[in-house]
Amino acid sequence: MDRRSFIRATTVGATAAAASGLAAPAIAQGNRTLTLVTTWGRGLAGVHDSAQYCADMITAMTDGQLTVDLRAAGELVGAFEVFDAVSSGQADMYHGVDYYFLGQHPALSFFSQIPFGMTFMEYNNWWYHEGGMELGDELYSIFGLKAFAAGNTGPQSGGWFASEINGPEDFQGLRFRMPGQGGQVLSALGASVQNLPGAEVYQALASNSIDGTEWIGPWADEKAGFQELTNFYYTAGFHEPGPNLNLTLNLDVYESLTPTQQQIIAQATTASNLWTMSLFMANNSAALQRLQQGGVQLLEFNDAVWDAFGTAAQDVIQEPMGDELYARVYDSYMASMQSSAQWISRSEGTFTRQRDRIMGF
Amino acid sequence: MDRRSFIRATTVGATAAAASGLAAPAIAQGNRTLTLVTTWGRGLAGVHDSAQYCADMITAMTDGQLTVDLRAAGELVGAFEVFDAVSSGQADMYHGVDYYFLGQHPALSFFSQIPFGMTFMEYNNWWYHEGGMELGDELYSIFGLKAFAAGNTGPQSGGWFASEINGPEDFQGLRFRMPGQGGQVLSALGASVQNLPGAEVYQALASNSIDGTEWIGPWADEKAGFQELTNFYYTAGFHEPGPNLNLTLNLDVYESLTPTQQQIIAQATTASNLWTMSLFMANNSAALQRLQQGGVQLLEFNDAVWDAFGTAAQDVIQEPMGDELYARVYDSYMASMQSSAQWISRSEGTFTRQRDRIMGF
Repeated sequence: MDRRSFIRATTVGATAAAASGLAAPAIAQGNRTLTLVTTWGRGLAGVHDSAQYCADMITAMTDGQLTVDLRAAGELVGAFEVFDAVSSGQADMYHGVDYYFLGQHPALSFFSQIPFGMTFMEYNNWWYHEGGMELGDELYSIFGLKAFAAGNTGPQSGGWFASEINGPEDFQGLRFRMPGQGGQVLSALGASVQNLPGAEVYQALASNSIDGTEWIGPWADEKAGFQELTNFYYTAGFHEPGPNLNLTLNLDVYESLTPTQQQIIAQATTASNLWTMSLFMANNSAALQRLQQGGVQLLEFNDAVWDAFGTAAQDVIQEPMGDELYARVYDSYMASMQSSAQWISRSEGTFTRQRDRIMGF
Repeated sequence: MDRRSFIRATTVGATAAAASGLAAPAIAQGNRTLTLVTTWGRGLAGVHDSAQYCADMITAMTDGQLTVDLRAAGELVGAFEVFDAVSSGQADMYHGVDYYFLGQHPALSFFSQIPFGMTFMEYNNWWYHEGGMELGDELYSIFGLKAFAAGNTGPQSGGWFASEINGPEDFQGLRFRMPGQGGQVLSALGASVQNLPGAEVYQALASNSIDGTEWIGPWADEKAGFQELTNFYYTAGFHEPGPNLNLTLNLDVYESLTPTQQQIIAQATTASNLWTMSLFMANNSAALQRLQQGGVQLLEFNDAVWDAFGTAAQDVIQEPMGDELYARVYDSYMASMQSSAQWISRSEGTFTRQRDRIMGF
């Protein structure tokens, strides 16, 4: 799609809607149903729960003024169609992770996840207090959208392997499932990267058409059953240390809401952000214990492997720097990440290392 | 769905509702002002902001039904009187940290902070998803209260010292300011522990009536000006790795609210919880850089010192185990902390260690 012609089209639409009476205050105070589409299949652990939480809380707090009608991926539009559907006004809002839409704009990676990027709290620090939200408003408004941080899966695991990874050369020729920029990094190390949809991964691994896979984290990975097929689990990965999930509204719809309704959406999503992250943590923690008790070997990549990930990731992240907005978001993101990372390392990092050592965790 | 036809439909509905007397439910519910007292002086960085955020968001989201009137410490009741004031119904709610009220019940320490206890995300994991909230309801209801997690300062620093701490023996005879259970730990190491109010700490250090002090973290510590008096700053401490701040209502007041108002308080506090933590992170990160550039030496206690903190802290934490509810909360808290700590260490811990090494943070 030509983005500029698209914007003209929606402007015309909005003007027509206003002329037909959209702007009358009585309408804004009336009861409305807002359609929420998602990038998640119905019931997908954690991420669908996060979308449902947003829907339920907006509905509950507006006391009947707004009813959010959640349509999971495929029920109204497909998972990868939600961005266009909300941008064009076909649906009112979507809940999803925006690295699916890097074809729309490469800077969407910063508002979802870049390899070697921010953790959950580093992202919140940037988003709420260090200019992230303002840059996000600038980016999303290009598409007639208004985004709110609304959840996080926490760090995603490095993945499941048929044998140990002892150096970067072990990725040479390895048939491995990893989507997005992480997959580009593994390609640079010589892997044959597959981007299979979730529903096909187990079978691909079972039939040896791939040698390994990453998925999400212990909770979802255990549900997928990968521990039945492989025994080597790398619990830390470079690719998604804290992917941010957004609830993103059509900007005209957002602006048609009352200030009270707008504030309720802002606070419901902020609450969902924390609730979702802690939901993943609780379930990942419990699942990790079960996997370990079931005999799965929990491993860490060695420094040489991490170094190779790091070098390749820098190339991937630098590639779109010719885009002015991308470069501006990059600078803001990197400065904030460096600053918060140094504080976290010297405070919580040192504390947890000492506590876990002393208490034998 | 065709949104335009949908909007027309709701317009009709809204007009009909208005004609039939929309204002009636609002009158039935009545507009109320709720008084919020705090354990914080007006304007105290971060913590007063957190109370104000809760007040503003509840007021904004209830659209005039509830107005929260914030009275800082000393404006209606003193900082240490808020628990009794809300329990007795003199005020409707308080925002504060409950280790001030261990005389009411020792288990309040788990819902604020124990030495060597939970970080921010570990606490949320326990509170929202692993039974913490239910145990909190049981504890607070004894006092006619209903508590909501509403903020966190993040990890508090080890403190400011006139000279380096090279072993636990260096605490022998040291005149040091640290309140609460942390202070009990330093007493066990032979320190002469002072519990000075914040306003007196700078002068005490300047006049050499104490040898050192902890306060909060780089943001607040820099404002207090301790870098003008001492040069050795231990950025990680054992005593408050993630103190939880609650917004706590009188239970009768809470139960008199509508379900919508109750939900708004739950979501406003959850949002405040994340917003406050990230506010502290943003400001602590920036202040740490300034302190370092100003010549402050950033230090870590060595393992022998941490071991001594750990041994003494276990005695302090075990002491109230004769109380049945304390013991039950202890068991739940410790099991949850061990489980989440192991997952965090293997995921985010490994990731940030590798990222910070590779990127030179």
